[in-house]
Amino acid sequence: MGAVPDDPPPPREAPQMTRVLTGDRPTGPLHLGHYFGTLQNRVRLQDDGMDVLLVIPDYQVITDRDVAEDLLGHTHGLVLDYLAAGIDPARATVFTHSAVPALNQLLLPFLSLVSVAELGRNPTVKDEIAHSRQSAVSGLMFTYPVHQAADILFCKADVVPVGQDQVPHLELTRTIARRFNDRYGPVFPEPEALLSAAPLLLGTDGTKMSKSRSNSVPLSATADETAALIRRATTDADRRITYDPANRPGVSGLVQLAALCQDRDPHDVAADIGDGGAAALKRHVTDAVNTYLAPMRARRAEYAQDLSYVREVLHEGNKRANAIAEATLDEVRAAMGGFR
Amino acid sequence: MGAVPDDPPPPREAPQMTRVLTGDRPTGPLHLGHYFGTLQNRVRLQDDGMDVLLVIPDYQVITDRDVAEDLLGHTHGLVLDYLAAGIDPARATVFTHSAVPALNQLLLPFLSLVSVAELGRNPTVKDEIAHSRQSAVSGLMFTYPVHQAADILFCKADVVPVGQDQVPHLELTRTIARRFNDRYGPVFPEPEALLSAAPLLLGTDGTKMSKSRSNSVPLSATADETAALIRRATTDADRRITYDPANRPGVSGLVQLAALCQDRDPHDVAADIGDGGAAALKRHVTDAVNTYLAPMRARRAEYAQDLSYVREVLHEGNKRANAIAEATLDEVRAAMGGFR
Repeated sequence: MGAVPDDPPPPREAPQMTRVLTGDRPTGPLHLGHYFGTLQNRVRLQDDGMDVLLVIPDYQVITDRDVAEDLLGHTHGLVLDYLAAGIDPARATVFTHSAVPALNQLLLPFLSLVSVAELGRNPTVKDEIAHSRQSAVSGLMFTYPVHQAADILFCKADVVPVGQDQVPHLELTRTIARRFNDRYGPVFPEPEALLSAAPLLLGTDGTKMSKSRSNSVPLSATADETAALIRRATTDADRRITYDPANRPGVSGLVQLAALCQDRDPHDVAADIGDGGAAALKRHVTDAVNTYLAPMRARRAEYAQDLSYVREVLHEGNKRANAIAEATLDEVRAAMGGFR
Repeated sequence: MGAVPDDPPPPREAPQMTRVLTGDRPTGPLHLGHYFGTLQNRVRLQDDGMDVLLVIPDYQVITDRDVAEDLLGHTHGLVLDYLAAGIDPARATVFTHSAVPALNQLLLPFLSLVSVAELGRNPTVKDEIAHSRQSAVSGLMFTYPVHQAADILFCKADVVPVGQDQVPHLELTRTIARRFNDRYGPVFPEPEALLSAAPLLLGTDGTKMSKSRSNSVPLSATADETAALIRRATTDADRRITYDPANRPGVSGLVQLAALCQDRDPHDVAADIGDGGAAALKRHVTDAVNTYLAPMRARRAEYAQDLSYVREVLHEGNKRANAIAEATLDEVRAAMGGFR
């Protein structure tokens, strides 16, 4: 079915800038793993002239838990972390999912383009189910990749930054874009995965740095809190410090953290500490982290004093995201025909 | 989790009128089965002072078919049928699903409140799958009862008119309303099913009158088209006309049609025709139907001359539906906490 003849779909706006869509669930403060894993890179993309959209998927918080705790506080905390890290609201767009109702209307055509069997074998869903805090698999969890597709496609993102383990997550979004275009005419670009070059960051217990494992250093921690967190880190009895992630994950995680903060090779960092043992390593890492984060923390503290600026950032971001969503929805209605 | 303390949810508006939600998919003209089954009753509810909302679920058309054919034409046709039957836009609200994006945002919390297992055993889904024109079960089909719940609950409908076979369809909507209220606080009424007293109407082939079986008399048919449709109806060789649906479905369907149009007992209608046979029966039925529909058809023809009124009805209905959806969404966000 083509478009209604006497009312053709509006031409797609000229793609002047590459659009990047990414974001974080508002479930707690961002930590160094987020910073070196993704946040630093987002600031770089913004500074390279890309149109960066940061979605705070507040509704999706209920995908794997029954209630959303302190959603507003976590959302404001995320915006503070973004601002501290160098996200510039004059160039980037920060918005909350729940403030963009039109985005969700894409769920109907998108859900019609995937089969229940496909959803059931989707790696994202399998992964989410495995890590869920809920007993039964909810309809929201099951359809999660379609919600993700709506979050990405509503703004016609060209690029989605992902870690190596998340590459398959984007596949269904690309499939949905392709199927929609095949059936109704070209509306959506197939977004590309932008692989982060950042290594997996180890936490203070030698396992992957993660909010839920409490083994991370939040960007918003004070210098003293940072020192205490690193003091408690798991190391070993070998006084000679080396960078050997496979055999010495605890020590190597700390070495890596210092190396990232100082933009040095971790082997060089380890060699400098030499036979100083865990105590010297921890002092070195604490110093490196606190020095590196000091300007960010100063900015964050300034913005945190008066949240009206944070609210304004969200207000403007939500306004822009709504305008984008409405424009896309108009194109979708026109392409599908008769939806007016 | 309660609401954010310094920003409590707005009080629910005083329920001044009982709100009724119902509607029809825009897949073809309404016929006499629709009229006596539901449409007549909706007009009665409106005239009794209820707040009747009629949703035209245009998006849902793609639930069981790949493309939506002549969606705009069918949508306008439905509005014409409504106006012809006595729906008064000054009192009732007619809107299209695709024009109310905020409605779809309810899908996220609602999907989180039902399990995949529940969706899989839902009778609506099973039924839809059985009648589907598609090979694989789509995510839209699978989640259809949740979309239906959003269509009903967005306006806090008190009452949903249903046929006997549709009673279970409303159960999941009631379950979702209850679970939402239990988890987040009272927002949604549990809508009641209003059972239609109208009998199952038989088509001109003696089976259930249905758009897809082409055995029905459209409200919009001309008197001549109606005569032709009834002339082709399946009857039997017994010249004595009786009302005996179980053994003589074809003859009884026609008798019932005349009885409904004349507001008489079908046995009396049959007795009047007596030994006249199928030809006399068909003349009698054609006359009864054409007499009954004449004023409706005249009204319909008048409105059809200039569709700008139909468009205005939809425009105003969509505006009101959007205002209702936004207000409900605000309450939902406040109840869930932090979604602002």
